[in-house]
Amino acid sequence: MCRWLAYLGEPLRPATIVLDAKHSIVAQSLNSPLGAETVNGDGFGFGWYPTGEDSPAEPALFHSTEPAWNDENLRELTGAIKSHLFFTHVRAAAGPPIQQTNCHPFRYENWMFMHNGAIAEWPKIKRDLTVLIDPSLYPHVLGTTDSEVVFHLALTYGLRDDPLGALGRAIRTVEEIGNKHGTQFPWNGTVAISDGSTLWTTRYSSQGRTRSLFHSADIPSIREMYPDVERLNAFGERAKVVVSEPLNDLPGVFVEVPESSAVILDDDGYRQEQFLAA
Amino acid sequence: MCRWLAYLGEPLRPATIVLDAKHSIVAQSLNSPLGAETVNGDGFGFGWYPTGEDSPAEPALFHSTEPAWNDENLRELTGAIKSHLFFTHVRAAAGPPIQQTNCHPFRYENWMFMHNGAIAEWPKIKRDLTVLIDPSLYPHVLGTTDSEVVFHLALTYGLRDDPLGALGRAIRTVEEIGNKHGTQFPWNGTVAISDGSTLWTTRYSSQGRTRSLFHSADIPSIREMYPDVERLNAFGERAKVVVSEPLNDLPGVFVEVPESSAVILDDDGYRQEQFLAA
Amino acid sequence: MCRWLAYLGEPLRPATIVLDAKHSIVAQSLNSPLGAETVNGDGFGFGWYPTGEDSPAEPALFHSTEPAWNDENLRELTGAIKSHLFFTHVRAAAGPPIQQTNCHPFRYENWMFMHNGAIAEWPKIKRDLTVLIDPSLYPHVLGTTDSEVVFHLALTYGLRDDPLGALGRAIRTVEEIGNKHGTQFPWNGTVAISDGSTLWTTRYSSQGRTRSLFHSADIPSIREMYPDVERLNAFGERAKVVVSEPLNDLPGVFVEVPESSAVILDDDGYRQEQFLAA
Amino acid sequence: MCRWLAYLGEPLRPATIVLDAKHSIVAQSLNSPLGAETVNGDGFGFGWYPTGEDSPAEPALFHSTEPAWNDENLRELTGAIKSHLFFTHVRAAAGPPIQQTNCHPFRYENWMFMHNGAIAEWPKIKRDLTVLIDPSLYPHVLGTTDSEVVFHLALTYGLRDDPLGALGRAIRTVEEIGNKHGTQFPWNGTVAISDGSTLWTTRYSSQGRTRSLFHSADIPSIREMYPDVERLNAFGERAKVVVSEPLNDLPGVFVEVPESSAVILDDDGYRQEQFLAA
Repeated sequence: MCRWLAYLGEPLRPATIVLDAKHSIVAQSLNSPLGAETVNGDGFGFGWYPTGEDSPAEPALFHSTEPAWNDENLRELTGAIKSHLFFTHVRAAAGPPIQQTNCHPFRYENWMFMHNGAIAEWPKIKRDLTVLIDPSLYPHVLGTTDSEVVFHLALTYGLRDDPLGALGRAIRTVEEIGNKHGTQFPWNGTVAISDGSTLWTTRYSSQGRTRSLFHSADIPSIREMYPDVERLNAFGERAKVVVSEPLNDLPGVFVEVPESSAVILDDDGYRQEQFLAA
Repeated sequence: MCRWLAYLGEPLRPATIVLDAKHSIVAQSLNSPLGAETVNGDGFGFGWYPTGEDSPAEPALFHSTEPAWNDENLRELTGAIKSHLFFTHVRAAAGPPIQQTNCHPFRYENWMFMHNGAIAEWPKIKRDLTVLIDPSLYPHVLGTTDSEVVFHLALTYGLRDDPLGALGRAIRTVEEIGNKHGTQFPWNGTVAISDGSTLWTTRYSSQGRTRSLFHSADIPSIREMYPDVERLNAFGERAKVVVSEPLNDLPGVFVEVPESSAVILDDDGYRQEQFLAA
Repeated sequence: MCRWLAYLGEPLRPATIVLDAKHSIVAQSLNSPLGAETVNGDGFGFGWYPTGEDSPAEPALFHSTEPAWNDENLRELTGAIKSHLFFTHVRAAAGPPIQQTNCHPFRYENWMFMHNGAIAEWPKIKRDLTVLIDPSLYPHVLGTTDSEVVFHLALTYGLRDDPLGALGRAIRTVEEIGNKHGTQFPWNGTVAISDGSTLWTTRYSSQGRTRSLFHSADIPSIREMYPDVERLNAFGERAKVVVSEPLNDLPGVFVEVPESSAVILDDDGYRQEQFLAA
Repeated sequence: MCRWLAYLGEPLRPATIVLDAKHSIVAQSLNSPLGAETVNGDGFGFGWYPTGEDSPAEPALFHSTEPAWNDENLRELTGAIKSHLFFTHVRAAAGPPIQQTNCHPFRYENWMFMHNGAIAEWPKIKRDLTVLIDPSLYPHVLGTTDSEVVFHLALTYGLRDDPLGALGRAIRTVEEIGNKHGTQFPWNGTVAISDGSTLWTTRYSSQGRTRSLFHSADIPSIREMYPDVERLNAFGERAKVVVSEPLNDLPGVFVEVPESSAVILDDDGYRQEQFLAA
């Protein structure tokens, strides 16, 4: 169920990692060695914070129901723009229909959210979770995925003030309601959240067996390891990627994010902390 | 907001009225003289009960987000099959996104439902209406239109036993909740419902100014009026159409359905009765 | 590059083999063990000759750029109709863009044509082949695939009078022009052609290493082999499938079509002959 | 058949004129008062030269088969980027199928091309024109429109060295071949061409009755005429638009381009000259 990539760093042409890397996220849409499904061809999304003077604070979204490997518009767009913070998501639908409103990332004001994973027996608990969304936020739910409901539940619980706290509370609510309906392991998922400056990502599942998640090592360290790899010149010193699986086969470049932990990236760099230890 | 057509009668190649008539429903998608909007290009739907031995009781659906005037598949399909009962709907979206799950007709078991009109200030009252849907029916709501919610509300209120009574009760509920939210005229719409044998259609709005609706005269009478029109040979004696606006300019062929009334068609022919007089 | 299926026999609900079989053609779109590519997600096509009194002689086509595994409309359509002769094709694009006009099967009057394979270095020889199409047929080429050009070349060479002869001549022309441009093995492909009564299929490549092709054994023999398999009751005695790879794992049910041969099916049953021995 | 807009000037968020103007090009897609067709809902295209350091010289393209008024991605994209030179085109298909490869603008290296109009009886003369394209350019024709063939004919005739001369020669060839096939008025069209610095636009038809074309007056003059219109602050002093019909109702803001003339815009400003006087 899906693969995703989040980038934070110096403004970069997204195609560099969305398309051109050996195991780019688009390559993963056709063949994802570590994914729960090999093929992630049920639409995709690309969301980016525009870079440059007088840019809007809100991220822009490009959603499509086509397989990412097919999409000429994605190639064009990610080769033409630059962004300091962008999300890409390729989907393997677990039930909810393939339509643009079900494509990640989702947006609320200046916030973006995406998710790889699933709520177990979603149709059974959808109603109980949906009614917990704040009525003022309810009309903003445009699609029918579990992910978007969890995003709005986290918004209800204060995501804009405390992203990890609110996401944690939303996930605990999923677990409570899931358990009430007889589901043993209600939540599985890696999540990325941003406000345009900071990137929060989490890896947690009720069963302790979450979809894979990796972050890139520091660019200066990578350059030291691979002084001859010219491709690395495309990246600035602060460039950092969090991604469902490594973008290349170079040992040491991608580091697994442990279960039940959060990775936080901002101007001060990288920070890892515990998240919802089971 | 939308135009639709429902046919009941001898098995007919749907293209005859969906495409080939002067003001066919596909022609109305590009140019609808009586519609609230001229262009109904935001997707369409075609639903038909298969005709022939051992046919399934459930109708089959073809939904597309393309304008109907563009769609090669619709041409192919409606020229190749025959059906004794089919619905076609061309959409002018009033808010909810353009996606297959928002295309009419909707289906529940052997029931089909379509709607031309709107609930006033839908985003404001969506939540209050949605929670009234029976929890066992709730997971079956696949899209995000007001129309689909009203269909499931009517199912909740017993549509399968008493279609007009249940639809009436659903509309009254829309009016109550709309009024509570300060909307003066919450409901506007023409509706078609079928179980595969009978066709129920209604025309009603809170304000008494409903979208247009017409039914065709009896084929034998039409033949008498227009003995030289060869096109009429395509139709059987029992052929009957209910449609948002006349399919041709021949006087007397299409008769307006009055406000606050229901038209019922079945093997016994045509019946008209009052529906929710304001 | 693609997988396909052709059926000839008693009228059958196509979903039976297009969707419901273990390795149905739709299952092959997501995972094709014997295909040149595992994923055939670049659109699909379904073409059928309508069954029943006063049916048109022309086949009807349903083309979509979505992956077949996603497509609700394909499920609906193939579950609602019956046909005595239909083609299904799932595409793995080898270059020409993913658009409905590049989806197989192609049609000319009452003729259908589909192809799995490719012309080597198509962009290099496209022009030389295209100009050989009869000028009166040229405007009928709607897409940009090698397959459609070969179909029209075969039409130019008399396909309507002698399908296998004309196809053979078209393939020889591909080989001549390909060789002239320095390509060693210009043609690879399995082809299906029908006029609505007879089904001609071929397996041939310049190198003698053609994409896989199988035909089903006689239904009476299959029933004898597997008396307990209830699924077989769906098929009539004359039901026959030619398909890129077996639809199930039952030994003996599918028989490989040899290299450089043609399989012909009609009311007289099954016939195999040599085709363009290298 | 179609409407288009070309902008050259200070970097601008394209949404300002593509979406937000009263008669924006997207508004024209649903309702075009001066167009040959009222509705231009058969797909659209947006092409832009990226602005900013180390930007690629090639324009980027966004093509979609959806009506422009529907397309969320177009809203997102044109609100997030800035460009000093961009094209937008909304299509009313005159025959060639609705597919991304038939959406304008077309691109060759750093060149963009779009067209509003048509070649009379295109299917009849397509072959004769197509074979005149330089064989090395032939594989680059991806769609099936008359417009794209004319672009490649102009490329064949030296468009990169002399845009107006080569376009003129291509149009004269269309006229010769059209006349040979018995067509009295073979060409009708307004064309826009750019290399990323200069914008060439033309208005000419064999009959002297070309689709409408306008250019905007100088921004300083417009500001003088309308000192209170705040919207004008979005535009720089050099901002200039050439467009099928005026974007607003303010008298004096848009000036008609005469028949048989070319408008050229570059760093030196505006220039008008005769083009192919009939």
